[in-house]
Amino acid sequence: MTALADAAVDRDHAEVEHFYARQMRLLDSGEADAWAATFTEDGSFAPPSLPEPVRGRAALAEGARGAVAALAAEGETHRHWVGMLAVRPRGDGSLLAESYVQVVAVRPGEGPRLHLMCTCADVFVRQDGELLVRERVVTRDDRR
Amino acid sequence: MTALADAAVDRDHAEVEHFYARQMRLLDSGEADAWAATFTEDGSFAPPSLPEPVRGRAALAEGARGAVAALAAEGETHRHWVGMLAVRPRGDGSLLAESYVQVVAVRPGEGPRLHLMCTCADVFVRQDGELLVRERVVTRDDRR
Amino acid sequence: MTALADAAVDRDHAEVEHFYARQMRLLDSGEADAWAATFTEDGSFAPPSLPEPVRGRAALAEGARGAVAALAAEGETHRHWVGMLAVRPRGDGSLLAESYVQVVAVRPGEGPRLHLMCTCADVFVRQDGELLVRERVVTRDDRR
Repeated sequence: MTALADAAVDRDHAEVEHFYARQMRLLDSGEADAWAATFTEDGSFAPPSLPEPVRGRAALAEGARGAVAALAAEGETHRHWVGMLAVRPRGDGSLLAESYVQVVAVRPGEGPRLHLMCTCADVFVRQDGELLVRERVVTRDDRR
Repeated sequence: MTALADAAVDRDHAEVEHFYARQMRLLDSGEADAWAATFTEDGSFAPPSLPEPVRGRAALAEGARGAVAALAAEGETHRHWVGMLAVRPRGDGSLLAESYVQVVAVRPGEGPRLHLMCTCADVFVRQDGELLVRERVVTRDDRR
Repeated sequence: MTALADAAVDRDHAEVEHFYARQMRLLDSGEADAWAATFTEDGSFAPPSLPEPVRGRAALAEGARGAVAALAAEGETHRHWVGMLAVRPRGDGSLLAESYVQVVAVRPGEGPRLHLMCTCADVFVRQDGELLVRERVVTRDDRR
């Protein structure tokens, strides 16, 4: 790989890392609409808990609002923690980002609990200079 | 954002990541004075366990020594693990670094335990080319 | 440090991060030979469970195959999660990469379990432009 290509890969890696820090924090703090806006307008999310992907920002925001409400009802905070990130450019200008994701659950007065161990595969596209998720597939290690 | 500004943000991100790897390792291995020296001379640290921030390197080092001694007495190792880092330049030349922090506790012959799940907000300033923490605020998710 | 040296350090950091994402995923998905090929031909790995380092790709692959088979027999998935990475160039052109490593274990239908908390020190060399591990030393925090 050339030095120029290397630099581009490093740039992508850093930018995706930063994206996840922002995106997961939005979800964890209950900002469902802002979270949904980090997907493309027709973005899809295939979570391990549903038979079909959720598609489009409106449906994504609705799903996130449901999850946020369920956590609030239980008095539980979730932290999505992305790591072991590998980003690869694809021929069509999109990026494939593969990562491991921990979900840590915390209740007031209790110790934190490692709730889920997942893998995440995201296809990113750039619109007006900004990275957006066009397609997300998440698998749970306890359902392999 | 321009490519030049992007590059600066990536640089900051990588440098802060590297800073945390070094700083937390100092704390975890009991080097209280070297850890305190990663703050500015008048740096402050508002931990979740105290009503008032600890201020100044001498007080920071003293606090760290106390924590190190308490862990040694219990025969416990703590590992501070920073992730989900988002770094933003502020108008005054300082950086705001927000992150999630896991504290993992380990005792000889026992499995590791996820001890605390925290958020950390650090204000960094650069002195003689080196990043130092001027202000740290840590919150515990089990006390939200 | 000069800006040029800084840029080189950032590059190394990003490249090693990417290396680990790829290398650990190979191990976690059972690709023993591809995992062994991320070490130099005479690479060594001193795991905490053995009195002597494992040396050479053939022995490394054999060890990995054994570990993979043992996990498969127990129906357990392991995820190696590297963080808190600090990379330093050494005078001879090699890199020293120090990190914390979590091993998370998951069984079907059960919650994930933080299985091991380790430190890893790797010496990397570059061959034909590619980073390879020449020497790996891993310690377990529960055996300190």
